[in-house]
Amino acid sequence: MNNRTVRLAKRPSGLPGPDTWTIADEPAPAPAEGEVLVEVKAISLDPAMRGWLDEGKSYIPPVGLGEVMRASGAGVVLASRDPRFAPGDAVMGGLGVQRLACVRGRDIEPIDLSVAPFERWLGVLGIAGMTAWFGLFDVGAVQPGETVVVSAAAGAVGGLVVQLARRHGCRVVGIAGGPGKCRLVTERYGADACIDHRAGPVRPALAAAVPGGIQVYFDNVGGEILEAAMTLLARRARVVICGAISGYNDFASIRGPRNYLNLLVQRARMEGFVVFDYAARYPEARAGIADGLADGSITAVEDVRDGLDRFPEVLTELYTGGNFGKLVLRP
Amino acid sequence: MNNRTVRLAKRPSGLPGPDTWTIADEPAPAPAEGEVLVEVKAISLDPAMRGWLDEGKSYIPPVGLGEVMRASGAGVVLASRDPRFAPGDAVMGGLGVQRLACVRGRDIEPIDLSVAPFERWLGVLGIAGMTAWFGLFDVGAVQPGETVVVSAAAGAVGGLVVQLARRHGCRVVGIAGGPGKCRLVTERYGADACIDHRAGPVRPALAAAVPGGIQVYFDNVGGEILEAAMTLLARRARVVICGAISGYNDFASIRGPRNYLNLLVQRARMEGFVVFDYAARYPEARAGIADGLADGSITAVEDVRDGLDRFPEVLTELYTGGNFGKLVLRP
Repeated sequence: MNNRTVRLAKRPSGLPGPDTWTIADEPAPAPAEGEVLVEVKAISLDPAMRGWLDEGKSYIPPVGLGEVMRASGAGVVLASRDPRFAPGDAVMGGLGVQRLACVRGRDIEPIDLSVAPFERWLGVLGIAGMTAWFGLFDVGAVQPGETVVVSAAAGAVGGLVVQLARRHGCRVVGIAGGPGKCRLVTERYGADACIDHRAGPVRPALAAAVPGGIQVYFDNVGGEILEAAMTLLARRARVVICGAISGYNDFASIRGPRNYLNLLVQRARMEGFVVFDYAARYPEARAGIADGLADGSITAVEDVRDGLDRFPEVLTELYTGGNFGKLVLRP
Repeated sequence: MNNRTVRLAKRPSGLPGPDTWTIADEPAPAPAEGEVLVEVKAISLDPAMRGWLDEGKSYIPPVGLGEVMRASGAGVVLASRDPRFAPGDAVMGGLGVQRLACVRGRDIEPIDLSVAPFERWLGVLGIAGMTAWFGLFDVGAVQPGETVVVSAAAGAVGGLVVQLARRHGCRVVGIAGGPGKCRLVTERYGADACIDHRAGPVRPALAAAVPGGIQVYFDNVGGEILEAAMTLLARRARVVICGAISGYNDFASIRGPRNYLNLLVQRARMEGFVVFDYAARYPEARAGIADGLADGSITAVEDVRDGLDRFPEVLTELYTGGNFGKLVLRP
């Protein structure tokens, strides 16, 4: 079997386009001592990917020109030179956007396909799930009975935040783009309400949905939606900064929330986090989420696409709002 | 003795001017049951005063048109109908901008002039002192050995933050306007360095002064100085939002820190607070600050002006940078 890879050809300005990437067949790699050859079955597409394409200091180094695009993935071991893995094992880790990945055994972990299929290990049981869990419970320090608002609530992280908060006994209001996504958020994820940010100004609709103010605002988008939520903070509110999809393709246009002084008026805090800091505690979050999947209180919505060559177009849907739930590519 | 009062005549846009106020003689008020008549000896001038002049929701209601301007003050009891106070007692509380204040006994507290004179009870032992203490230790959760940066470091709050942090074993860098203020911050308050924001761009100078990044940034000014500091946050930094002098006279111009996503990159938090929430713990802070005054490790710098009628012009110095240390008016 040949490999097929998606490599970074050119750093994009704005949305990545077809010329951002080189897609080509390559010989299958051979594992060195300590390495494992994995056939990739599912590739995770994440909003953070856009940030990895820009030069400059961030929470992880950028993807280098000519390198295989960084991505979480899940697959099956074909050959192993690490005693912990054998052909046929199901694993996940940083496999990249390619068909065959040669990675160090210490950089991957086994997954149990009897618990969930490949794509779910990249969604609610993967980085998106860990992000929702630690952002809501640790950074947001959410308590039962509080009002939680989540933006990008139909997305992989937001959708799980809605469900975890509801399961924790909170009143939950989502914000999403379009009636279809809002139905997903209320009907399948169980939010008490969902504001369609394409239907009109967010602030009045949100104000009506949170009469007592917001205790935890989980922000995935930044921009005007962040500002709208910040006008409605309750006393000692927590604003969890998870990302800023609205600004990812044009960093120069990012502006801070003009009403940040409301943090003072409401004695509130705004806090950022990076999920990788919680790696040692992933098993705790995975166990909690798996319980919810087993008892039906958590629904995993995955948007699975086929074809490695479609990576460039599918990736852009994350930023234009085309996906429903966790976006996964089968190469 | 007649009273003389400064009342709010008109809500200002921008800096308050002479037509903002009505200054007039009035008959001396007479205390009702439970009230105390106080001769005001010192009036505290605070940056927050500007915010009290605007209509709209904030952490306390605005001063009403026609009302005596709100202010903390200290003075001597002339007559009392509250059994806890007797003529000759020294007291402090919300006395307003006037010569004679008639206030409820439960709204004032006794002060000890053998510990410190009137003006000091409005400065390092008053609201400014409490703000510095709880902002630095509670909201900022500062630890010995950390690097602390403080804006408006020559001001009443900032100057004490510098000294408390230095006394706590921190490396301290102040930011102030002009060489005279910077000398005050380094020579009298003991900061390791002070950046003169009028001498050139703040960011490069600050970057050179904090090679390991900033663990606690205590912000009194907002605007570009806040942005500069936020580019230099260390991991798990705390940004304490105490105020935003730069924007107080033109709220519409306030913009949020464009680089707020650095909170995410650095896993940092930005938190606002209102000192009145800590009222039950003021004795703890006063005792700590009084210890520092007694052993000489804390210097109180007061800028005392005379004449109630000068209130309008002296107040504007808070926003134009004219004062050195705690600004107090003797009526």
